[in-house]
Amino acid sequence: MADALRIGIAGLGTVGASVVRMLGDKGAELTRQCGREIAPVAVSARDRARDRGIDLGNTQWFDDPVELASSAEIDVYVELIGGEDGPAFESVRAALEAGRHVVTANKALLSKRGVELAAIAERNGVLLNYEAAVAGGIPVIKTMREALAGNQVTRVFGILNGTCNYILTRMEAEGLSFEECLREAQRLGYAEADPTFDIEGHDTAHKLSILTSLAFGCRISADDIYLEGISNISQADIRAAGELGYRIKLLGVAQKSENGIEQRVHPTMVPTSSVIAQVHGVTNAVAIETDMLGELLLSGPGAGGNATASAVIGDLADIAKSRPGFQHGPVFGRPAKELAPYRRAAMRSHAGGYFIRLTVQDRLGVFAAIARRMADNAISLESIVQHGDVTQAEQKTVILVTHETTEAAVRKAVDGITKDGHLVDKPQVIRIERAA
Amino acid sequence: MADALRIGIAGLGTVGASVVRMLGDKGAELTRQCGREIAPVAVSARDRARDRGIDLGNTQWFDDPVELASSAEIDVYVELIGGEDGPAFESVRAALEAGRHVVTANKALLSKRGVELAAIAERNGVLLNYEAAVAGGIPVIKTMREALAGNQVTRVFGILNGTCNYILTRMEAEGLSFEECLREAQRLGYAEADPTFDIEGHDTAHKLSILTSLAFGCRISADDIYLEGISNISQADIRAAGELGYRIKLLGVAQKSENGIEQRVHPTMVPTSSVIAQVHGVTNAVAIETDMLGELLLSGPGAGGNATASAVIGDLADIAKSRPGFQHGPVFGRPAKELAPYRRAAMRSHAGGYFIRLTVQDRLGVFAAIARRMADNAISLESIVQHGDVTQAEQKTVILVTHETTEAAVRKAVDGITKDGHLVDKPQVIRIERAA
Repeated sequence: MADALRIGIAGLGTVGASVVRMLGDKGAELTRQCGREIAPVAVSARDRARDRGIDLGNTQWFDDPVELASSAEIDVYVELIGGEDGPAFESVRAALEAGRHVVTANKALLSKRGVELAAIAERNGVLLNYEAAVAGGIPVIKTMREALAGNQVTRVFGILNGTCNYILTRMEAEGLSFEECLREAQRLGYAEADPTFDIEGHDTAHKLSILTSLAFGCRISADDIYLEGISNISQADIRAAGELGYRIKLLGVAQKSENGIEQRVHPTMVPTSSVIAQVHGVTNAVAIETDMLGELLLSGPGAGGNATASAVIGDLADIAKSRPGFQHGPVFGRPAKELAPYRRAAMRSHAGGYFIRLTVQDRLGVFAAIARRMADNAISLESIVQHGDVTQAEQKTVILVTHETTEAAVRKAVDGITKDGHLVDKPQVIRIERAA
Repeated sequence: MADALRIGIAGLGTVGASVVRMLGDKGAELTRQCGREIAPVAVSARDRARDRGIDLGNTQWFDDPVELASSAEIDVYVELIGGEDGPAFESVRAALEAGRHVVTANKALLSKRGVELAAIAERNGVLLNYEAAVAGGIPVIKTMREALAGNQVTRVFGILNGTCNYILTRMEAEGLSFEECLREAQRLGYAEADPTFDIEGHDTAHKLSILTSLAFGCRISADDIYLEGISNISQADIRAAGELGYRIKLLGVAQKSENGIEQRVHPTMVPTSSVIAQVHGVTNAVAIETDMLGELLLSGPGAGGNATASAVIGDLADIAKSRPGFQHGPVFGRPAKELAPYRRAAMRSHAGGYFIRLTVQDRLGVFAAIARRMADNAISLESIVQHGDVTQAEQKTVILVTHETTEAAVRKAVDGITKDGHLVDKPQVIRIERAA
């Protein structure tokens, strides 16, 4: 049997501890599958004294992850520190430069410095594996990087944040407000004390930016993502969506159009009968549309120590099966130096259906004014629902669902309606996404 | 750049032609991804003269696939002939023995001779890749063989036959009979003139047997699968399922119990709110439950020239990225010689919920007799629905949904009810499957 694959792990939080535990518990089976042992030989974390409930056995302790990363005692460096800069970046770069393979779960790091790190990995002939960075235990990176070789992706979209999906699922199931569901998510540990990063879509954007690069062979550009969170989704939206045959999900969507690449994160109406609409709670899902294959959907646990550790172990097993002389596939599907510059399609050129909910004064001519603004912007309507507000006799709710139109047309129409002075509340606009 | 990977393709039907076309159309992108060209250099098919609408360019023609398979001119042999024996088996064996990698889409071959072929591949240090053999374009083999390393699978189940799923979807959507939907599937080319192999579950069983081996590290045993097709599913079943919050799918299910491994293919009630219940038409889906990851679901096109070719190309790309000296992972997840003997759990020990539909004479005491048979077999009921038959005044339909019980108990109870002499039609029993 070949020599053991010696790994060094930096970061011993929930995921790091799960990785150490899984390597211990599943050692025999992994050895059988890989043809050699995967042996944790060194670790690094902030607090050496802390009891993590894991057996660190004979592993060597490093106070400095950068020193661990370039140690001659390891073959693979597993980065579970987190953060887009600092020790995470420094240590991963040091490992790759020293000719060590790297496995990381760090989406922020890849989103910001992924292409730079990929170039270093490819120059040094080592692997940079990151299955755990996007959608936790779902093998979406492996699928896009390996299984879909030769396919041209036309669109990739998904539920990439469990916190948001949990909140939206609860809002629909229980009829509770966004704030109430957020508090419950916090109580259950699904949301942070400061939930901004999740609920405003930043976490989804990080993950989406990585998928976009894999999908379209372009450089990663997380700063260019159109971003809208879920905090202004109300029960009125959820109910109206249900009546119209839709469900609201926070999606990250990347697609190619003639204007470039669209990357957007926003609350989205998907048909209730679609597979992705059935993805509930903290579960994640990714749909990939390609020219040859059609649509593929993967769903599963997007977070959690064991699910994330499972993805890390899968990455390690792939490395364990490789041997010197193995020519690795490029980190982002095509060689880093050949990744195309990212060309952003302006959001206003986005084409699709729209849900528009307006709260208006109940007076003569309001509806005609709304209809005129739509017609003036060449927006044709699929359905119109108008009903009174039981609590406010002088108000009415008007819900419009458009046929395919553009973001620019909808914004102009809604601006016009707002200027007409009939609205008594902020207009709500939610994009509709095709989904099988 | 490394030398081209030279491939020989045997079988130029729909899939074979798609593979040749895709290698031509996607050549530049594949070369970029793999670091070398994937070049079809030789082909074999039954009829040399036939126009397949593809450019066979400079490929060498072989009348005999076995000769092609062992030719020194190729590095990889792609078997798309089909069939569990004959030239498919002979040629794959010849290729592996000659040290050629093999890619095949042949589920029947793997189901019958997979372990034998895996042993030859592993002895010769070559790859045997078969992503296209199960669920077409869905990367379930890659997921189970690579991504889930170290996970212990507890259950794998799926919609593995597009013909059956198309028929069941149409029956529910249109209220048509099984026979009408089958005829439509035949008209559209989704079902064969002799549909037995699909509708009686044999095709699903072949695919399931491969997944079972990957899931549980055991030898393949397709002959030991409990089999029930969809031809006796009626509108009454579909409607009753809908009323109770279920949808009927033909599932292949493999799970581990204390008695051994259960492998079964049968019409199954899944909760309407589950993701798999939303998999419509010819689409396939596979759900994998593991100890570390929880449940993963993959859905996508299970058949068709391009989707299947996409899986073949993915397999070829993996080989193209490898180099001499690469230690391949075992064909069925663990080395062929270490695959455990298959230990069949008897179907009567299956535990689960059951849907039982009885058509009975409308007379005093019938219902009490049914209830007594259930109680005598310790079957507790989750719900009971009884309604008259509008066309037959003297008949009643009784629908029982049980809590978890055993197959043995249900069979005994239903036999008892049959012997009681109140039934005016064959009793219908459909198993219920948990699904997220």
